[in-house]
Amino acid sequence: MIYMDNSATSYPKPETVTLAVKRALDGCVANPGRSSHREASRTAMAVYRVRERLADFVNTEPERVVFTYNATMALNLALFGSLRKGDRVLTTPFEHNSVLRPLYRMEREGRITLDFLKVSTYDENVVCDDLLKHLDGDKKPTAVVMTHTSNVLGLRLPIERIGAICKDKNVFFIVDGSQGLGSSRIDVEVCGIDILCTSGHKGLYGITGSGFMALSRKCRRELEPLLWGGTGIASREKGMPDGYPERLEAGTVGVVGIESLGAGVEYVTSVGCDTIAEKTKSLRKILTEGLSVIPRVRVYAPESDSVSIVLFNIDGMSCDETAVSLDGFDIASRGGFHCSPLAHSFLNTDGAVRLSASHFNTEAECQAVLSAISHITKGL
Amino acid sequence: MIYMDNSATSYPKPETVTLAVKRALDGCVANPGRSSHREASRTAMAVYRVRERLADFVNTEPERVVFTYNATMALNLALFGSLRKGDRVLTTPFEHNSVLRPLYRMEREGRITLDFLKVSTYDENVVCDDLLKHLDGDKKPTAVVMTHTSNVLGLRLPIERIGAICKDKNVFFIVDGSQGLGSSRIDVEVCGIDILCTSGHKGLYGITGSGFMALSRKCRRELEPLLWGGTGIASREKGMPDGYPERLEAGTVGVVGIESLGAGVEYVTSVGCDTIAEKTKSLRKILTEGLSVIPRVRVYAPESDSVSIVLFNIDGMSCDETAVSLDGFDIASRGGFHCSPLAHSFLNTDGAVRLSASHFNTEAECQAVLSAISHITKGL
Repeated sequence: MIYMDNSATSYPKPETVTLAVKRALDGCVANPGRSSHREASRTAMAVYRVRERLADFVNTEPERVVFTYNATMALNLALFGSLRKGDRVLTTPFEHNSVLRPLYRMEREGRITLDFLKVSTYDENVVCDDLLKHLDGDKKPTAVVMTHTSNVLGLRLPIERIGAICKDKNVFFIVDGSQGLGSSRIDVEVCGIDILCTSGHKGLYGITGSGFMALSRKCRRELEPLLWGGTGIASREKGMPDGYPERLEAGTVGVVGIESLGAGVEYVTSVGCDTIAEKTKSLRKILTEGLSVIPRVRVYAPESDSVSIVLFNIDGMSCDETAVSLDGFDIASRGGFHCSPLAHSFLNTDGAVRLSASHFNTEAECQAVLSAISHITKGL
Repeated sequence: MIYMDNSATSYPKPETVTLAVKRALDGCVANPGRSSHREASRTAMAVYRVRERLADFVNTEPERVVFTYNATMALNLALFGSLRKGDRVLTTPFEHNSVLRPLYRMEREGRITLDFLKVSTYDENVVCDDLLKHLDGDKKPTAVVMTHTSNVLGLRLPIERIGAICKDKNVFFIVDGSQGLGSSRIDVEVCGIDILCTSGHKGLYGITGSGFMALSRKCRRELEPLLWGGTGIASREKGMPDGYPERLEAGTVGVVGIESLGAGVEYVTSVGCDTIAEKTKSLRKILTEGLSVIPRVRVYAPESDSVSIVLFNIDGMSCDETAVSLDGFDIASRGGFHCSPLAHSFLNTDGAVRLSASHFNTEAECQAVLSAISHITKGL
């Protein structure tokens, strides 16, 4: 199989990730943070080492890394936990439903107002200029929520510039790093981010069931918990304890997932995010250039300086039919709306096919994909 | 190491669970429910098979099994998702903070009123009679939330009798099965349960990071989601879809954890819950009888017909000191409040030491534990 569905979940995982999972089954067998015996301490130490690694990766303190089940849980915690009644939230049309649906929910409840920033596939000034325009208006936004990289187009948004504006104007800034981390190393200080959320099983190469939320050292708001429950400390209190991460991390964490994520981030760090991005960009270039010369194929945003993801359609075939045809060639892609309906509205598609490479994919695989698509179009 | 901390997380896991994890790393590599290629379908099928297995285990439909990160997430989903403004909730002093803290939170917000049922360590009629008394009062409860088995004492509450009363009087019934499932097979129909929640990594032998919530076929309420996000279907809707499990299962599920839980439940089913309970009861008997004759040792609820858990203190030693001393003998126990503060208030302890056996423990291990405790008391 040629696996080009890495934006859904990455495959293969680095060998060290698989080994970390197997090691965790033997070596991290107790409940971390619940008991004081040596196996519990050993497990707790292992979890803490991953906390340290992730904190180092995004530049914050280990106590400000909160483990979650997935990016959705991290984003729900960030959004429901930090946005307040009366917040005026700006977001983008490139957001995933894990951002949009919590925001819509809060909008319906009358808790926030919601507006969308202008974006462009060719000019990153558009979004920055639009943010400045909003900030000059009489309804100045109080929070900006945006993805680092579009899961539909692979486009990177100018997080660092947006963050600088938010910092300057005291606007709260939440970033969804699910598609960006791995091919990017996001420094929350440098990017002026208050809260960064991500899944663990995409560009960070952990297993599904892993993710985290990181608060920057200067995060301008205190968060309310999303889950209420046991913390292993302050058990006699009716509420959750004040300290991080316990306040935001009720219940037993998924140790095996955490260990896989730690190994994944170690891998990404050792290879280097820039090296990964260089590779995925070069694969994207092969795919977009190759697709551009196949009759009946339309590539979206072919000239953008984005990573990994290529979005396309074949005239006369639905995206789902195309994805199924590719599966017949043993090629894994994903057709549809990719849980990001507004990005597809923006592009004016009725769904599309996404090819998402990781740096484990090869040029030869890209050529095979092109050849298959060419074959499919010839049959029409 | 003699591991007697199975109520925090079980160890060892059955060999089949470890194998299932390793198999999932190789064979369930895609994102289930997000794409249509064969690897995605294969992973989705594997996840569905576990849904079927769990549904069969608790007697409901596969679509009514909702995978979660842990019991805390399942309980938060059940409680915040089903309890309505004006609910009068009855619970017990044996609840874990994963039940108590969400309830306290809703009480503080003025969403519910909260009252506690009387319990006894010797007479299960007490709780049933008290429920009937509440139901005859002018503030008839609208919901009962209770644990199947106390994580502090191992006592089973009369869930089936309580469920029959709730069914008869149309009272909504939520059960925390975290400590009970495994040594019990809970049939939600027979027990009149609307929602059953559990962790996956205790008596069901999955890995940490696994858990689920099951709605009975006759569940009398529709649930609001806890997490809002991508579902892989109905992506263009602003809200979550109506159908279960998608409505309650936003974001990518933890496939490896789910596979481990499937193998764990298969194991428990093949051994037989009754066989497991028989073994853990016999181990509890050895421990309680042995502890009863050691001077300075106080065992709580020594004569109860409960499973697995033994709670004790040594006169003149704090529970934490005792747990640390036991660790010196290579025995894993847990001192403290076990995230269940009211159970300790009920018992009038300032924390205690918990020994929790699984059916993998042996009589010889119990004798070694008794010998160690005897040795510790002699040193005082």
